[in-house]
Amino acid sequence: MTAPDDGVITLLPPFAERDRFTAEGWCPMERALDLIGTRSAMTLLREVYYGGTRFDDLARRAGVTPAVASDRLKRLVEAGLLERRPYREPGQRTRYEYTLTDRGRDVFPVLVALMRLGDELPREKEATIGLSHAGCGEPIVPEVRCAAGHEVPLNETVASIVRP
Amino acid sequence: MTAPDDGVITLLPPFAERDRFTAEGWCPMERALDLIGTRSAMTLLREVYYGGTRFDDLARRAGVTPAVASDRLKRLVEAGLLERRPYREPGQRTRYEYTLTDRGRDVFPVLVALMRLGDELPREKEATIGLSHAGCGEPIVPEVRCAAGHEVPLNETVASIVRP
Repeated sequence: MTAPDDGVITLLPPFAERDRFTAEGWCPMERALDLIGTRSAMTLLREVYYGGTRFDDLARRAGVTPAVASDRLKRLVEAGLLERRPYREPGQRTRYEYTLTDRGRDVFPVLVALMRLGDELPREKEATIGLSHAGCGEPIVPEVRCAAGHEVPLNETVASIVRP
Repeated sequence: MTAPDDGVITLLPPFAERDRFTAEGWCPMERALDLIGTRSAMTLLREVYYGGTRFDDLARRAGVTPAVASDRLKRLVEAGLLERRPYREPGQRTRYEYTLTDRGRDVFPVLVALMRLGDELPREKEATIGLSHAGCGEPIVPEVRCAAGHEVPLNETVASIVRP
């Protein structure tokens, strides 16, 4: 039996008992993935981050069918990430537009972290999409910090079972 | 036509031409999702972050079948997030264990950002998993910063097409 490599998360008791306490089925990451773990949900959310609001625009730019867009947007609204508002142009039926809520904005680090990983993976086209800070022009990166402001690497992270 | 809400990413020309330059199909986020956008890939990666190394342990704790684990782990190794090493116990056949590479460690913000979102979504069980900083005990959060160290909100982010 080899010891686990250094540089991983430390599990506190009783979570450290890996046979009794697997994270499977109740890890918050899994709930998040149930919501935005599909390519279609994240590409629709990306298009809202890029300023898209209207159903047709979002579906087309995300590259998903109207049926898929309808289902994903409905779930994002139900989960409180997007807000749906009706609008109507003269002589047309009522349509809907979608805007971010605060919770939807909170998901921004997911996009940034995924884009950073994707940038390191092989790609077919030469061009890519870069995100940078309007203030200073520097590229933006995802970071993990604690509430006290320290940057926290994997091997300084502890995981524990939290009961309310 | 309503203007897009404030507080979204600013698209620089020519990326701002949303009919000619949709991100669909070449956005780095999509490449990342092709790799880790499945629940099974992320739960396996989570178990490696938690110190798991052996195939059987990883599959069981992630709650995935051996066939799925085999496929996902193979892809994570090919993408350079994990390293596969053979090991052998006396009288048994050669087996494999998996450890993180630097690129695999770089994906940590994805886990933290997803766990944070999941914590805000409705859950069945009361207990959840908390991540905190070993140094000071404070909870850890995902942040977006630029290379100059500024914290960058969505509405101070610009997206542009980058050609090498």
